[in-house]
Amino acid sequence: MAMTQAKTVSQDGNPATRLNAMLDEDMRAVNALIIEKMDSHVKLIPQLAAYLIAAGGKRIRPLLTLASTAIYGGEMARAHRLAASVEFIHTATLLHDDVVDESAERRGQDSANLVFGNQASVLVGDFLFSRAFQLMTEDGSLDVLRILSGASAIIAEGEVMQLTTANNLSTTMDDYIAVIKAKTAALFTAACEVGPVIAVAGPDAAKAMAEYGLYLGIAFQIADDALDYMAERETLGKTVGDDFREGKMTAPVLLALQKADDDERAFWQRTLSGRETSDKDLKQAQAILQRHDIYAQTLDMARGYGEKAIEALAEAPDHTLRPVLEELVRYSIERSS
Amino acid sequence: MAMTQAKTVSQDGNPATRLNAMLDEDMRAVNALIIEKMDSHVKLIPQLAAYLIAAGGKRIRPLLTLASTAIYGGEMARAHRLAASVEFIHTATLLHDDVVDESAERRGQDSANLVFGNQASVLVGDFLFSRAFQLMTEDGSLDVLRILSGASAIIAEGEVMQLTTANNLSTTMDDYIAVIKAKTAALFTAACEVGPVIAVAGPDAAKAMAEYGLYLGIAFQIADDALDYMAERETLGKTVGDDFREGKMTAPVLLALQKADDDERAFWQRTLSGRETSDKDLKQAQAILQRHDIYAQTLDMARGYGEKAIEALAEAPDHTLRPVLEELVRYSIERSS
Repeated sequence: MAMTQAKTVSQDGNPATRLNAMLDEDMRAVNALIIEKMDSHVKLIPQLAAYLIAAGGKRIRPLLTLASTAIYGGEMARAHRLAASVEFIHTATLLHDDVVDESAERRGQDSANLVFGNQASVLVGDFLFSRAFQLMTEDGSLDVLRILSGASAIIAEGEVMQLTTANNLSTTMDDYIAVIKAKTAALFTAACEVGPVIAVAGPDAAKAMAEYGLYLGIAFQIADDALDYMAERETLGKTVGDDFREGKMTAPVLLALQKADDDERAFWQRTLSGRETSDKDLKQAQAILQRHDIYAQTLDMARGYGEKAIEALAEAPDHTLRPVLEELVRYSIERSS
Repeated sequence: MAMTQAKTVSQDGNPATRLNAMLDEDMRAVNALIIEKMDSHVKLIPQLAAYLIAAGGKRIRPLLTLASTAIYGGEMARAHRLAASVEFIHTATLLHDDVVDESAERRGQDSANLVFGNQASVLVGDFLFSRAFQLMTEDGSLDVLRILSGASAIIAEGEVMQLTTANNLSTTMDDYIAVIKAKTAALFTAACEVGPVIAVAGPDAAKAMAEYGLYLGIAFQIADDALDYMAERETLGKTVGDDFREGKMTAPVLLALQKADDDERAFWQRTLSGRETSDKDLKQAQAILQRHDIYAQTLDMARGYGEKAIEALAEAPDHTLRPVLEELVRYSIERSS
C-alpha cells in the first residue's frame, strides 16, 4: 500500500501540491487563520501582508507542521495555529531578508520592500513575528514556544552569519552548511518537530521528525543555491544570479573554487568580492560551473542530506502522508524551479 | 514616612537613577543576564548589542518591571528575566526604528545602523526579539507571554501607524495619541503589568500597574516630543529637530497647527510634507512654537496624563519604591533633556 502510494505520488509532479490536496481542509483553516491574524486597524499591515500572501509560495513549512501532527495523531486544531505561526515567522523573515538583500523581486513579482518601502517591510515583519508568538501563546504549549523561539533566534544568527561570509572567499564548506542549517533548516526542523510534540508522541518521535526537517531543509537550500545559477530557469520567468550578484558564498561557488585554476580563481575573486558584476560575468560563472560539472556535484551534496531525511522519516509511523513527505525530499532536490 | 521619602527623592534629581540605586542588586542581575543572553557564536551580534548597551540609556523599562514586582512582593529572580526580556524588546525596537528613520544618531553617539549597516541592525533586532521570547518561555508564565507578545504586536502597529501619519497634515490629536499609546506606552504598560502578574496579586493590582505604565508612557512620550523642538537642549549635546526633519506629526506641531494663521499654516505645510528642510526652517518652527507658548501647552497635556498615572499608582501597596515611581512621572514631564 505504502509503495503504491509512493509511486502515484512520484507520477503526480509536485508533492507539495499533493500534500496540499491531502490536507485541504486543514490548509483552508490555516489560511483563514492567517488572514484573520494578519488583520489590523492599521490598514497598511493587512495590505502589505496580503500582497505577500497573494504572491503565493508553496507553504511548505505549514504543510510540514500539519503533516507531522497528522502522522502522529495530534490535535489538528492546534496544528492549524502552529502552522500559521510557522508561516508568520517565515514571512517575517522573507520581509526582513528582502530589506537586507535590497531585493527587487520575490516569487516573480516586485518585492514588498520595493512596493511599500523598506520601513513598512521591517515593521510589518515585526508585527507578523509578534503575531506568531501570540498564536503560540494561545496554543499554550511551553515546549512549542521553546522550539519556535529557539528557531527564531537561530534563524537571525544564520542571517547575520551569512552577512559576514558574503564576499569572503575564505568561507569554507562547513561555514556554508552552518549558515544554511541556521537560516533555512532551523525553521524546517521546528515546523516538523512541533507535530509529535503536540501529539505527545515522545522524545524519539520528536527527534525523528526534527531530523527529517533538518536534513530536508539543508537539502532544499543546497538545491536552491544550485538553481540560482541555472540559466534554464530564466525561460520559466525565474530570476537567476541573485546570489552571484550579492557575492553569497554558496555550495556551487565553493565547489567551483576547489577546482579553480589561477584564472578562474581570479575571476571568482573579482566577481564575488563585492564589486559590481555584469551579465557577461554571470554567463562566465555559469560556463565555469558547467565546465567542472558543478551542478551535478551540488545536487549530489543535496542528495546526501536528502537520504538522511528519508532515513529519519522511516522512524515515523506508517501513514498515507509519509510517502508524500519522502517524495517531498526527492522533489526538493530534483525540481527544476 | 512616605512623604519624607517623596521629598528626598525630588531633591535628588533623576528618580531613574534613584530607582537604579534602590534596586542595585537586581539591576546587576538584569545586566548580567542581558550580557549573557545577547552572546552568540556569531560575533557581530554581541559586538553590535554591546555597542548599544555601552551607549547607556536609563533602562527605565526594566526598572519598572523590577519595581512593580518588588512592590507586590513577587519573586525577584523571575523579575530579572522579564526585565531583561522587556529591555531586549525595547532594544530591538530601537534598532529597527533607526533603520526606519534612517537615523544617524542615538543617545549622542553614531547609531548602530550607521556603524554596522542597516542589514545587521535589522537582523540583530530580530535576534534580540527572539531572545526576549526565549527568556519569557524560560520563565514559563503564559500570562506574561500573552502580555508581552500582545505589546510587541501593538508596538509594531504603532510604528506603522506613525509611518502613515508622517507628512500628513490632516493627522488629528487622537491619531497622535493612538500612535504614542502603541509605539511607546504599550511597552511601559506591559513592563509594569508583569510585576503584579508574577506576584499573583490579582486583576485589580495588574490593572492599576498597567494603567500607571500606560499613562506614564504617554506623558513621557509627549514630553519627549516637546523636547525634540527645544533649542536649549543643543547646549547639552542633544540632537534637536529630528521629528521636524522627518515630518512627524507630534503634539507641539498639532497644537501649533490649531493656532496657525494662514502664513504659519503654509509654513507647516511646506516643512512637514516630506520636502527637505533647512536649519533656518527649524529655527522658524521653534520661534512659532515660542510665540504661541506651545511648549507650556504640550507639557500641560503631558501633566494631564501624568496625573492619571499617579492616581493609578495610589492603588499600589505602600512601599519605599512607590514614591519614587510617583516622582518618575513628574520627572519624565519636567526633565529638560
